[in-house]
Amino acid sequence: MSDITLIEIKANILAENDEAADRVRYLARGTETRLINVMASPGAGKTSLIMETIDRLGDRMRPGVVEGDIDSFVDSERFAERGVPTVQIRTGGACHLDAAMVEPALASLDLDALDVVFVENVGNLVCPAEFDIGADARVMLLSVPEGDDKVLKYPLMFSVSDALVVTKTDYLDGPGSDFDLTRLTERAQALNPRLQVFPVSVRTGEGMDAWMEWLGQVLG
Amino acid sequence: MSDITLIEIKANILAENDEAADRVRYLARGTETRLINVMASPGAGKTSLIMETIDRLGDRMRPGVVEGDIDSFVDSERFAERGVPTVQIRTGGACHLDAAMVEPALASLDLDALDVVFVENVGNLVCPAEFDIGADARVMLLSVPEGDDKVLKYPLMFSVSDALVVTKTDYLDGPGSDFDLTRLTERAQALNPRLQVFPVSVRTGEGMDAWMEWLGQVLG
Repeated sequence: MSDITLIEIKANILAENDEAADRVRYLARGTETRLINVMASPGAGKTSLIMETIDRLGDRMRPGVVEGDIDSFVDSERFAERGVPTVQIRTGGACHLDAAMVEPALASLDLDALDVVFVENVGNLVCPAEFDIGADARVMLLSVPEGDDKVLKYPLMFSVSDALVVTKTDYLDGPGSDFDLTRLTERAQALNPRLQVFPVSVRTGEGMDAWMEWLGQVLG
Repeated sequence: MSDITLIEIKANILAENDEAADRVRYLARGTETRLINVMASPGAGKTSLIMETIDRLGDRMRPGVVEGDIDSFVDSERFAERGVPTVQIRTGGACHLDAAMVEPALASLDLDALDVVFVENVGNLVCPAEFDIGADARVMLLSVPEGDDKVLKYPLMFSVSDALVVTKTDYLDGPGSDFDLTRLTERAQALNPRLQVFPVSVRTGEGMDAWMEWLGQVLG
């Protein structure tokens, strides 16, 4: 019985979310600002990838960042220090960002002056996948130390994403690593044939070119 | 306004959960079976730690396992192969186990024949922390590749846990690792002074003795 109640609640929440996501799209399209929803487990390297990506975009694009965190300013301070317009959303316990949180965050940025906004979601492979935040692309990260069996366990995240960035590939030769990139790619693309896979090490720079090329196409 | 609605929903869900958690405790105490709630991010090494722990318990304890997964039998098959009584809960999208899911899982095990049941929660540092499942101890894992700043970002998990097992310590000397175990411990214990911290590498066996000793006390 409690199951049925839960499902109704969720349906209402998701319907409300979809309306807010449409408002986000309207807002961002008005200024031709692209939104990239970046999702992953805690510690998979979202902040580092966004930071390196912004550095490599250089003068070609004017970036902004929306940081979703349960309770801290750790990441947003790192972006602000570099002069990137940044908004921090403190979810106060919520395990994901929804469109109603992203809408006021975007409204507080000067979108006319931004070509792309990276939205760093809460570190979680489950809940963020359920919420459309109105982004132009959904990018998920999976770090090598997490293991290559995650497609089987968190299928929705792999299903809804446009790109999968496999991070920390410098760990592929790490102690006891049996991570199989081919197996991961096959499993992920069996579930989501349009998923683009980019193995990357932000630390060594390996694989960054291919990721930047794909992103360049999304940003148009 | 939608915020207020959400809070009410959550309060109701949590109240229902607490009742179910009490029923779980009643069930387990009747047979003197201890429950250990094991929580962590995806890929932090929950299954490996439980497996190694069961091996080391040897004949001293009769173990069982409850596996929480969104959609797979990967881990439960590994336990079943070893002859450990195992129940798989497929959450079908839910991002955590709650007590109402654990209750029927326990009821389907022969608790009279089990001294300890390890409940492997869904891989998630957020939601599982909110739900009391009636366990005797809550154990969280944080793997070295995730980084030592996670206390700031996922404070609730560190607050509610009795033990923090820092896994994959063989990565401490990994490429570009700046993980600071002392800093992590200080941050975590500032939030939760009674938190016991056990750095462990399941692969090399380093640190397993201290963890097993603590667990032995919990299991009584």
